[in-house]
Amino acid sequence: MNNETNIEPYKAVGILDSGVGGLTVVREFFHQLPYESIVYFGDTARMPYGPRQHDEVRRFALEIIEFLQTQEVKLVVVACNSATAAGLPYYREQLDIPVIGVIEPGVRAAVEATQNGRIGVIGTTGTISSGAYERDIRKLDTSVQIFSVACPLLVLIVENNLVKTPEALRVTEEYLSPLKEEEVDTVILGCTHYPLMTDLIREVMGDKVNLISSAEEIAREAKEIFTFEGLLRPLNPVKVNHRFFVSGKPSIFEEIGQRFLGKPVKAYQVIF
Amino acid sequence: MNNETNIEPYKAVGILDSGVGGLTVVREFFHQLPYESIVYFGDTARMPYGPRQHDEVRRFALEIIEFLQTQEVKLVVVACNSATAAGLPYYREQLDIPVIGVIEPGVRAAVEATQNGRIGVIGTTGTISSGAYERDIRKLDTSVQIFSVACPLLVLIVENNLVKTPEALRVTEEYLSPLKEEEVDTVILGCTHYPLMTDLIREVMGDKVNLISSAEEIAREAKEIFTFEGLLRPLNPVKVNHRFFVSGKPSIFEEIGQRFLGKPVKAYQVIF
Repeated sequence: MNNETNIEPYKAVGILDSGVGGLTVVREFFHQLPYESIVYFGDTARMPYGPRQHDEVRRFALEIIEFLQTQEVKLVVVACNSATAAGLPYYREQLDIPVIGVIEPGVRAAVEATQNGRIGVIGTTGTISSGAYERDIRKLDTSVQIFSVACPLLVLIVENNLVKTPEALRVTEEYLSPLKEEEVDTVILGCTHYPLMTDLIREVMGDKVNLISSAEEIAREAKEIFTFEGLLRPLNPVKVNHRFFVSGKPSIFEEIGQRFLGKPVKAYQVIF
Repeated sequence: MNNETNIEPYKAVGILDSGVGGLTVVREFFHQLPYESIVYFGDTARMPYGPRQHDEVRRFALEIIEFLQTQEVKLVVVACNSATAAGLPYYREQLDIPVIGVIEPGVRAAVEATQNGRIGVIGTTGTISSGAYERDIRKLDTSVQIFSVACPLLVLIVENNLVKTPEALRVTEEYLSPLKEEEVDTVILGCTHYPLMTDLIREVMGDKVNLISSAEEIAREAKEIFTFEGLLRPLNPVKVNHRFFVSGKPSIFEEIGQRFLGKPVKAYQVIF
């Protein structure tokens, strides 16, 4: 037996986002991979990334990835649409560990799930107008018909804890009506905030439509990578150690984080 | 064979100080334990600790220790006289990993080294007036004679890169003359800055006097603890991963850090 200890499986999962949205990915890791330690970085001082130039967003993402590497990570999840679109291949080139973006996992799951070849995509205005989901779907299947809808209010509804209000139902019905008319059988929740309003979207779209959560698919893909590469953390009694860092003030992040994760979140502010 | 992987030896060494002084301890770890990863926290936004109340300093130290624990440490070094004096037993009580203070290791080495039972102690005004070194020496050997001298200018001389100036020689001669008159055979460098002016102190005190560096003794004690507890990091090719955090602006710390360590230092600002 090789007497070198393989500590790689014990390293953490690094997750970056411009804000709080990526916490739904954290939640999925807690659910699907409860023995993995998470290091989260929310660039709350510089969010939103949407309106920024690609090269600026790429620079921010690389700064954060450099910080995540000080935390001994075995995987980086870019849980942010803008940062994924701005340079996923570029981050992969810079790192010798796997990097998962926020778009591919959901796209793969949606293309597999659809029966009638009609897929809906909902996301922020920035994500939808970037055409990133359509491009990635086309790469896998050119025959699929794609119907995209920008839903700018939904992030605000989630962050302000308004999901269970009548207004939220009305707004969601309004946004999703084109997808119902087009009879899509699969909807990609193309924004990390949306898993927090799955019940509402389900209510509007009905039971027969596949709802694809990027967060869920990312965690599933991580699990596959870890299994395949021998990086799955053993279940032995080494304590997990989650860490949350933000570039802005921690207080709002901690408050929303507690709501997203269902337990208290302690965050440290880090300035580069 | 137990198939649980023991990852404890791969954890980092956490070192905290109010500022840059503890970097001489880092330097000794680099020298004596080059395979260990270091996590350093310099509380530069709240230094100096000297003039603060003990309970406030203890609260600061505990905040930093809590942060260091997010970094997976197997040992905490309190490389700060004020923080050590303010609550070393208290930190030990709170943690289930070893904690080394800045005073005991030097004291033990000095008591072992002295032949004539005459020990000099130099330090900042705060350290000397606290009587902490005298108390700790007395605990080990009540017969030793102790001569303490406060040397307030020496920290400034080191931080401002003035060690090789004629003024520095004159000031040091002035400070050390009482110790020469008393014919001490051992001098404890009771401040983490002083290892950076060992040559000058050596020049003034002469070759026959034992100079005890706390930094050196701390690293030696860490090595003993790691050896005894099976925590010594194996020499296999897992990259070391040093990390530097400060509570103030990183730029001055990085500049002085480079001088202290002889290589570039990248520091992140962390705000609690």
